[in-house]
Amino acid sequence: MEYIEILGQNAKNAAPLLTKMSAGLKNDVLSQIAKDLSENKEAIIAANNLDIENAKKNGMSESLLDRLTLTEKRIDAMVEGVEKVVSLDDPIGEVIGGGELKNGIRLVKKRVPIGVIGIIFESRPNVTVDAMALCFKAGSAVILRGGSDAINSNKALVNIMRNTLSKFGEYENCVQLVEDTTHETAEKLMRLNKYVDLLIPRGGGRLIHTVIEKATIPVIQTGEGNCHVYVDESADLDMAVNIVNNAKTQRPSVCNAIESILVHESIAEAFFKKLDELWKGKVKIIGDEQTAKCVNVEKIADDNDYATEFLDLKLSSKVVKNVDEAIAHINKFGTGHSECIVTKSLENAEKFQREIDAAAVYVNVSTRFTDGFEFGLGAEIGISTQKLHARGPMGLKELTSYKYLINGNGQVRG
Amino acid sequence: MEYIEILGQNAKNAAPLLTKMSAGLKNDVLSQIAKDLSENKEAIIAANNLDIENAKKNGMSESLLDRLTLTEKRIDAMVEGVEKVVSLDDPIGEVIGGGELKNGIRLVKKRVPIGVIGIIFESRPNVTVDAMALCFKAGSAVILRGGSDAINSNKALVNIMRNTLSKFGEYENCVQLVEDTTHETAEKLMRLNKYVDLLIPRGGGRLIHTVIEKATIPVIQTGEGNCHVYVDESADLDMAVNIVNNAKTQRPSVCNAIESILVHESIAEAFFKKLDELWKGKVKIIGDEQTAKCVNVEKIADDNDYATEFLDLKLSSKVVKNVDEAIAHINKFGTGHSECIVTKSLENAEKFQREIDAAAVYVNVSTRFTDGFEFGLGAEIGISTQKLHARGPMGLKELTSYKYLINGNGQVRG
Repeated sequence: MEYIEILGQNAKNAAPLLTKMSAGLKNDVLSQIAKDLSENKEAIIAANNLDIENAKKNGMSESLLDRLTLTEKRIDAMVEGVEKVVSLDDPIGEVIGGGELKNGIRLVKKRVPIGVIGIIFESRPNVTVDAMALCFKAGSAVILRGGSDAINSNKALVNIMRNTLSKFGEYENCVQLVEDTTHETAEKLMRLNKYVDLLIPRGGGRLIHTVIEKATIPVIQTGEGNCHVYVDESADLDMAVNIVNNAKTQRPSVCNAIESILVHESIAEAFFKKLDELWKGKVKIIGDEQTAKCVNVEKIADDNDYATEFLDLKLSSKVVKNVDEAIAHINKFGTGHSECIVTKSLENAEKFQREIDAAAVYVNVSTRFTDGFEFGLGAEIGISTQKLHARGPMGLKELTSYKYLINGNGQVRG
Repeated sequence: MEYIEILGQNAKNAAPLLTKMSAGLKNDVLSQIAKDLSENKEAIIAANNLDIENAKKNGMSESLLDRLTLTEKRIDAMVEGVEKVVSLDDPIGEVIGGGELKNGIRLVKKRVPIGVIGIIFESRPNVTVDAMALCFKAGSAVILRGGSDAINSNKALVNIMRNTLSKFGEYENCVQLVEDTTHETAEKLMRLNKYVDLLIPRGGGRLIHTVIEKATIPVIQTGEGNCHVYVDESADLDMAVNIVNNAKTQRPSVCNAIESILVHESIAEAFFKKLDELWKGKVKIIGDEQTAKCVNVEKIADDNDYATEFLDLKLSSKVVKNVDEAIAHINKFGTGHSECIVTKSLENAEKFQREIDAAAVYVNVSTRFTDGFEFGLGAEIGISTQKLHARGPMGLKELTSYKYLINGNGQVRG
């Protein structure tokens, strides 16, 4: 049996143990994991140093090095994340439907674990702990495939968690790390339908599209955010500038930050004047000809620019005739993540919310709120940009399935 | 642009029209489709006759010919199916969550259409009408790819429906038929992520697995049913025989019929005696050595037999030591569809329902009840055997997605 199949089988065998585990025991395990991570900071940092050294040798950029680095403070944040998951309600066992059918058959629709979840992610090692805690609380065994850059950090983190699990019983295989980080093995994982129920890629567009292309397991697409703010004719311009500024600059590297603005032609000049007074060139604008008449642009925007997720202090801009043109543009170039209209018009607000095809459609609110914590889900494994299973922030409930339990007294179908 | 891409683009352009269509208008359209189908029976039957003639020339088996044949009565049943869909509640627009967040942001989680759904199916032309009606009511444009055997029937049916749609506006492309029935075009459809949101294969195991293998669009796996009845030590044997008989013989060709029985060793002899008195060899049994000691078997069962969906008056059988062995066998060989325990033991009933990993887990009820109508969903597009998005019978609600609508007064994230 191949290496990755063994991991698959281990996870498949661990999944039923999790199904039987009480909410209390799951929380005890997670609390202990938090403690053990906290007590093993030195070992984690030592392992992380190996990754950092290798990365420096390989000429990794400063920003990627920063994502890879684990400090005491960052480990504390991981630990807090696990404790936060402990505090959330257990989603498993919730009755979400049912009733008595004809012939007295009783039907209960109950929330159950998914089974085995595979997570494929890039260099940030905090995903290792985060993903394990959420999947474990949701009752699923997890197979983690992190990037080769973080392999030593990930091994250290997973070993600590497996060690904690083994203190409670034969539970180690509730979390496994794919230590062979070749692409070949990753691709085999994507086709492990026999053992894995769901695959979640976490990372950039290229990773996500590779997984969609190669996987035969169901995939949930997360985190691609080509988000827009449309400033309508009737917008309060101060509010519009404030929202655009927040959505672009508060944290440009995240998926719910905006990448593009659309501005109604009748207020374009006044809007860009106000925006320029605030930004004074701090954010590079790639705009159409009409934008260029109102404000300095880096270059004239083409379709490629409108399709780009900059994740930087840079955005594309287009002046539009009306809300319909804005909606058409967004539905063409958007990734179905978060979209916003700033307007005083009820008609345009309703039209925008009805016709925009995205997970979260905002009226007069910054797109930065699309987030599991902000939406009250407590935590999130990612933000789904597809329409199957879960859309928008995925919390614990979105990491579950359901089954029907049917009881009767010998009923047969006539 | 390639043929299938044009269909994809047409559907993608039709989807927003459906999003804007009221529940009343959708029902009016469907009622008119029912009428128009009813009034064009002759044309439908004439087209179907072409398919039948071709199929006979190609030596199609009697049972497949029967599935392909449309009679007046069968067209009436289709029409009734459409009228039934009219009578169902519209799922779109339902508010399924939400509330007021901190800072006064109001959040509404609302049920919305999926967008564009592709259905790939085999020779039964009734699926054409059935699938269109359900997808249309759920607000999605549909691309139908039926088998080449039924191409003339499907063309006739789709032309009638498109003609009806055009009476109400530019709505023809809410339903499109892939008239090029080559495998090459089908495979291109499976990779049309740019336009299609969901793919549902309806047919045998081979079709389903081809789609899973080739598709890059999210797929919902439906209708594979290797279902079991486990007869526990404490079972009422008359009830057990009655349930096994119903689940196997009432309609052997459907996915919720059983393919295998597991019998506790302590009651095996008595159970098989009763079963044999009823069946008298009518159902062929492929059993293990212990089954063979109790009843005539066609051959000794191997793992291949336990994995087979016979869809015929034939079933596999195994004598087991206890409920744990039954659960392990079912979780190994089952397809996650419908599983039943016949027992008087509360402990074993609860264990079985907790540990069996399937969409529907029955205690003392025939597996034949796993059905959208029986479960109160009104209708079904299929029975999902996967754990993402929908599990078990998929009705109108399971054919929808949701989005978050967020309203505020200029809130930004701090």
